[in-house]
Amino acid sequence: MDKKPIITITTDFSLFDGYVGIMKGVILGICPEARIVDLSHEISQGDIIHAALILERAVGYFTENTVHCAVVDPGVGTERAAIAARTKQGIFVGPDNGIFSFVFKMHHPEIVVNLTNKNFFLSPVSHTFHGRDIFAPASAHLACGKPLESFGEEISTFKEIPINVATIEGNVIHGEVIHVDCFGNLITNIPQSLLRQIPDSSEILCGHHIINGITRTYGDVDSGHTTAVVGSFDRLEIAVSGGNASEILCVKKGIPVTVKIK
Amino acid sequence: MDKKPIITITTDFSLFDGYVGIMKGVILGICPEARIVDLSHEISQGDIIHAALILERAVGYFTENTVHCAVVDPGVGTERAAIAARTKQGIFVGPDNGIFSFVFKMHHPEIVVNLTNKNFFLSPVSHTFHGRDIFAPASAHLACGKPLESFGEEISTFKEIPINVATIEGNVIHGEVIHVDCFGNLITNIPQSLLRQIPDSSEILCGHHIINGITRTYGDVDSGHTTAVVGSFDRLEIAVSGGNASEILCVKKGIPVTVKIK
Amino acid sequence: MDKKPIITITTDFSLFDGYVGIMKGVILGICPEARIVDLSHEISQGDIIHAALILERAVGYFTENTVHCAVVDPGVGTERAAIAARTKQGIFVGPDNGIFSFVFKMHHPEIVVNLTNKNFFLSPVSHTFHGRDIFAPASAHLACGKPLESFGEEISTFKEIPINVATIEGNVIHGEVIHVDCFGNLITNIPQSLLRQIPDSSEILCGHHIINGITRTYGDVDSGHTTAVVGSFDRLEIAVSGGNASEILCVKKGIPVTVKIK
Repeated sequence: MDKKPIITITTDFSLFDGYVGIMKGVILGICPEARIVDLSHEISQGDIIHAALILERAVGYFTENTVHCAVVDPGVGTERAAIAARTKQGIFVGPDNGIFSFVFKMHHPEIVVNLTNKNFFLSPVSHTFHGRDIFAPASAHLACGKPLESFGEEISTFKEIPINVATIEGNVIHGEVIHVDCFGNLITNIPQSLLRQIPDSSEILCGHHIINGITRTYGDVDSGHTTAVVGSFDRLEIAVSGGNASEILCVKKGIPVTVKIK
Repeated sequence: MDKKPIITITTDFSLFDGYVGIMKGVILGICPEARIVDLSHEISQGDIIHAALILERAVGYFTENTVHCAVVDPGVGTERAAIAARTKQGIFVGPDNGIFSFVFKMHHPEIVVNLTNKNFFLSPVSHTFHGRDIFAPASAHLACGKPLESFGEEISTFKEIPINVATIEGNVIHGEVIHVDCFGNLITNIPQSLLRQIPDSSEILCGHHIINGITRTYGDVDSGHTTAVVGSFDRLEIAVSGGNASEILCVKKGIPVTVKIK
Repeated sequence: MDKKPIITITTDFSLFDGYVGIMKGVILGICPEARIVDLSHEISQGDIIHAALILERAVGYFTENTVHCAVVDPGVGTERAAIAARTKQGIFVGPDNGIFSFVFKMHHPEIVVNLTNKNFFLSPVSHTFHGRDIFAPASAHLACGKPLESFGEEISTFKEIPINVATIEGNVIHGEVIHVDCFGNLITNIPQSLLRQIPDSSEILCGHHIINGITRTYGDVDSGHTTAVVGSFDRLEIAVSGGNASEILCVKKGIPVTVKIK
């Protein structure tokens, strides 16, 4: 079996300026055998939580010989550190701004290092494009087998971003919309494990909308109707069959979602 | 010669949520040597005809050791089947909703199977993301040489979507705009073979616009002028040199196009 | 070390129609071992200067065994030539419309040929999609080692597009905004080498906005404040920390930028 390393790239760079292409040029110059996979370059600009969520949902589908390079980095060039971490689910490279904090809750790092060894950077390092000058070359060296320990001193803490966790009181679950996906589906922070704790005959309140019960999939209701499903990442989603729920229901990220007995 | 299998992916997922990246992670975990090519992830959401047209135009440019995985799937999780088909022009994997019906008119399948063998799926299979759980792993196993016959029982019919075919009566061709491309060019269903049946000195009616004759290429008329050309897929196109014909002429998909003698 | 050739692709095709995917199918059919990197497919349509700038900034980050295929080609099918050129920084393939003129200023071509040898094209060649029929196959044959000299006769001149160069008079630098990047940062034609010729305590005028001095990076000013930095390609940029400078300041490409002593 072909065991070539994989490097995923997640950025808010879009494809407009060639910034991602440049990172790939740097990577292939250092580690030509790497397989590069774009996770997303359409992260909302500077939205670390969006990136953290995309990474949390994706990393489980990659083999452990994967380096995940993520650059949503509004603090580029300031004092925020650059880090790399090894977990059982692969290696993570990016700014220490919380971008990996959801991943690290599921896959606790065995070691986190502060990226300081300039031998693994481009030279000179710019102040505004560490994706090219630090994160791409470090990812490539790691993918090609350089030991993480040689990239800098080990650190014991890393930045975490708070996430609102859904709660249950009696038969009522309180959560919120944490992401609106490309189809306009409203993805909540309510996991299936919480839903199992209340009876099936429930109703969902999302903003001022009421949805009666949970269906298996979007197409189980007629086109144009609102439904709730347990989505493919085991969280409650609110969707409009054949339509864009966010636009049709005027619901955005942050809106409370409540599940209760009818 | 390097005979690595190719897998193309066509979806309406965009790159916003990392859904395509996740499919690639699944593929590379199963078939690490696969070459993955994005055909398009900007298919209009749920627009099976758009995807069918993109596939029809593209597959002839890939070698026969290609697996084409297409997931525009508004009926995901409902009773629509999942299929795979072998043709002389490669293998096709996707929902049985007509997405391959234009391709199959040109490249008739030797065998179509209903994808039911769960050994080739992720487990568990979600109800809302078969791209990840069924189509990506099935495509990867097929690319790596698993025989199609082992994926499920052979079926004798598959869903086809009707397409309006251009017709000719005397010296008049009746067609319509079937696609507006990224440049705003209006692509019709009128093939060059029909155009050859009428004299050269023709005029084209598109909505209430009249275009005098067919030129070789867009730049054969001055910038801002409307022209008709036989496009790179052998169909009549209406274009505005240096401009967006769809916006400038206010013409969309479905508008009738007539070619007749001046 | 793995010395597989790299082919970068730069177009204004977007990913909507599968045009780029088709080019990749053609490339992999001819040169299956090529690594393909998307530089950008979001070049503003027909904007040769945008493409020239993206290429100028990117090519230095790729190894010399790279073929850069660029297709922003409003004159496709007209009398403009198709060219390929060899430099110390890789091979360049595209229309002779000036798309490589900024690159060629930095990396002077050793040889430029007019692509006329039809053995290296698809057959027949359409009049409207030379990316597929000429540039992709030529790039693939070059990546796989076919000698450039066999593609057509050597030519001594190629089209160049004029670029407004920043000038200095006394302690005043006159430049302009030449690109607005995906973050809305205003990238000027003022290189660091010019900035070094005037004292540090300078102010920048951009349209009717005044910026006091140059900071190291975006985050060195508070969120929402305007700043000037020397960007990652060694040119003066004007940015709004955490915001979109182009939108907030209402500044577009072409607006004059002046740097002078306070």
